Amino acid sequence: MPLPSEFVEALGAITGADFVRTDTASLTAYGADALKRGAHPPDVVVLPDGADEISAIVRLCVSHRVPFVPRGGGTGYTGGSVPVRGGVVISLERMNRILEIDENNLVAVVEPNVVTGQLQEAVERVGLFYPPDPASLRTSVIGGNVAECAGGPRAFKYGTTKQYVLGLQAVLPNGDVIHTGGKGVKNVVGYDLTHLLVGSEGTLAIITRVILRLIPKPPVQATLRATFNTIEDAAQAVSRVIAHRVVPAALELIDGDSLEAVARYLNVRSLAPARTRALLLLEVDGLAEAVDEEAARCERACREAGATEILRARDEAERDELWRVRRELSFSLKTITPIKFNHDVVVPKGRIPELFGLIDRLKRDYRLRIPSFGHAGDGNIHVNIMVTPGDEDELRRAHEAEVVLFQGVVALEGSISGEHGIGFAKAKFLGIELSPETIALMKRVKAAFDPEGLLNPGKIFPE
Amino acid sequence: MPLPSEFVEALGAITGADFVRTDTASLTAYGADALKRGAHPPDVVVLPDGADEISAIVRLCVSHRVPFVPRGGGTGYTGGSVPVRGGVVISLERMNRILEIDENNLVAVVEPNVVTGQLQEAVERVGLFYPPDPASLRTSVIGGNVAECAGGPRAFKYGTTKQYVLGLQAVLPNGDVIHTGGKGVKNVVGYDLTHLLVGSEGTLAIITRVILRLIPKPPVQATLRATFNTIEDAAQAVSRVIAHRVVPAALELIDGDSLEAVARYLNVRSLAPARTRALLLLEVDGLAEAVDEEAARCERACREAGATEILRARDEAERDELWRVRRELSFSLKTITPIKFNHDVVVPKGRIPELFGLIDRLKRDYRLRIPSFGHAGDGNIHVNIMVTPGDEDELRRAHEAEVVLFQGVVALEGSISGEHGIGFAKAKFLGIELSPETIALMKRVKAAFDPEGLLNPGKIFPE
Repeated sequence: MPLPSEFVEALGAITGADFVRTDTASLTAYGADALKRGAHPPDVVVLPDGADEISAIVRLCVSHRVPFVPRGGGTGYTGGSVPVRGGVVISLERMNRILEIDENNLVAVVEPNVVTGQLQEAVERVGLFYPPDPASLRTSVIGGNVAECAGGPRAFKYGTTKQYVLGLQAVLPNGDVIHTGGKGVKNVVGYDLTHLLVGSEGTLAIITRVILRLIPKPPVQATLRATFNTIEDAAQAVSRVIAHRVVPAALELIDGDSLEAVARYLNVRSLAPARTRALLLLEVDGLAEAVDEEAARCERACREAGATEILRARDEAERDELWRVRRELSFSLKTITPIKFNHDVVVPKGRIPELFGLIDRLKRDYRLRIPSFGHAGDGNIHVNIMVTPGDEDELRRAHEAEVVLFQGVVALEGSISGEHGIGFAKAKFLGIELSPETIALMKRVKAAFDPEGLLNPGKIFPE
Repeated sequence: MPLPSEFVEALGAITGADFVRTDTASLTAYGADALKRGAHPPDVVVLPDGADEISAIVRLCVSHRVPFVPRGGGTGYTGGSVPVRGGVVISLERMNRILEIDENNLVAVVEPNVVTGQLQEAVERVGLFYPPDPASLRTSVIGGNVAECAGGPRAFKYGTTKQYVLGLQAVLPNGDVIHTGGKGVKNVVGYDLTHLLVGSEGTLAIITRVILRLIPKPPVQATLRATFNTIEDAAQAVSRVIAHRVVPAALELIDGDSLEAVARYLNVRSLAPARTRALLLLEVDGLAEAVDEEAARCERACREAGATEILRARDEAERDELWRVRRELSFSLKTITPIKFNHDVVVPKGRIPELFGLIDRLKRDYRLRIPSFGHAGDGNIHVNIMVTPGDEDELRRAHEAEVVLFQGVVALEGSISGEHGIGFAKAKFLGIELSPETIALMKRVKAAFDPEGLLNPGKIFPE
């Protein structure tokens, strides 16, 4: 049922008619995210500037009982910004200003659609650092990173987005504009709404401003690459690194199947030396003096675990070359087949070998290709179940395998999602990890924010 | 109205009669915390062991519509564990076991009443570190630290309790037992109930188990003391430290009035050299090589800001001596007068001079003694308004001054509480910081957890 023209005109009266879109091309473009699992075009797209305009849009939607969905960079993997029930997409793309970089208080204040990588560059120019580094950082935006609690390789040492959000301005589903937290690291006045909104996937409020904590930029990095004959050896190296009391800024694990894909894609055999079943990329950072010591400890840890080769970058060019394999992973996997179920499961890092044992069983039992890699420091592994387009039998086996994967991960004291969130893509799996009592409580929290259920409906909770 | 004897017997049937107390001495002891502002004895105290017993107690209370209040160490400063509406105190004192220290995964699993300092000692014995260090760490417990989101000197570098809580087991006000989060640093499955419970002051659920993140213990510390002629100079030194891109593990500021109290109490003039209006204690930690460099930068920063004297501890005994003034502060203030309104306000650290300007005006306008000190790195300053017992006029002036203090702090982009929480002592001030819309939302969140309002009533929200 199309929206009445008065509704669309009323949107235009709020933002100016130039910022309301109803053409088919726009509706299609705003109907999907990086998940690319079918299109769910909205009825209308509106591009407001500022919390007041958003508040007016929200009140208009509520009065007409029209669903509304906030959208940042549209780079999510689980459909968090996809308007599965139609209605209004509220795109925040015009709200992309860095409002303040406060060097003395180590704080940045930004609008939601500042691109994460651009914020990083801006703060690094003054010697500061915003650590969260999702792989999408060239295109994803801070508001979306906050809504999904984005992670990345540096999370093991520096934490995820959560650890850097000090305060928010947000528009509630009733149109109220609230401010949570503030510029201080310490604030215990009332409930921590800030961190309830972080990771709430745009289902509790629309984030319109973010106050972020910054830290001094580590002046020096050291990067190592170590190769192993087995996943167990690589996992042992990770344990040895911890035993030597080093917390690397990155501790990336890449399995043999993934390496093989990169080597084929780039046609560079040195990236996947023969018989390499696991590759670790380790990076330590800090003051030069400490970095040397920590890099030496990492090298020792890898040697103790039976590494077949250990390389240490001597300059920026070599560092770039070592990271190349990690950067090219996504593109390389596409040469296997264009469809992947890109899962971001987590296990306690001591259980990584058991996780890879499970993946091996899935490969065999369901005859699937499952190249896997990820952040070994925090046990967050990207498990990519590859599916050939049009192969319905493989698709069915892939769907069966993902359920077994999620059940196995929970049995290993892990979690079905460490970075991508639930959105609508994983909603049906929520009950594998959470108890009925916990889900019931989360629904009551949702209702406390959004009694009408008009903000971003059809997400997180199973139908 | 006393509770019916069947109710007390039913409690005994859950825990065993030995763990139910109704004698006057017990009721009095469990009727106050460190705030010591009047006694609010409960009707009965029960000492359960485990989430199942607590769940049964909660269901019993709900069926009889009796309020219930969880209690950890009883060391809070705002009455969070005080049963202001009577009913049942559920004391967690028997649940004081460290269940697991998982060195490989850098995780500890503990029951709520493990004393914070004892957990720290246990993890430090295996080379690990639990940074949060509230001043009460010899007597306060992890569950209470989580409920109040305890801070401490190290929060500037290491963050508060919030940054270390990975998961919880908790009993909801309807008796449901839930598990939130897990052993992983990354978890984005549903809403972040873990961090909603952190800092919720025992008003949303009863915490029965805590999964904590640990980090490697920094092997070396360097401690410096610098004295200044003005608060402005000391604040300038803090800014210079940041400008030199150092984040000290401690950055404590003590004002002249507080120093004078310590010097008199200990009768050691060297602790408060003549004309010292501000003293900074700086501590950096990490690998030895980095610590030397960072200590040198701190020294330079203090010199640039016009420090009158800079001392650096050469060994553990000297370090202990430098910290002595900080440790003796609380006792020393009691020699001024036994009653203090101990406020824990926060401002962005760049605004510390303005905060001390405000404190000076309060001293003058309201004729009060207000020795102040605190954590300069995160702008969290303990403002102690001293009141002579029996002096009703001074008491009235103190109450007037605290309102002006809170209003001024909020005007400085700060917060009325950084560590102690709201409890019932500060509930009437909540509206100074939070908007009516925000308070209304928090009340809806409370109702989502506790529709009957039986868990820890009378806290956080103004009547």
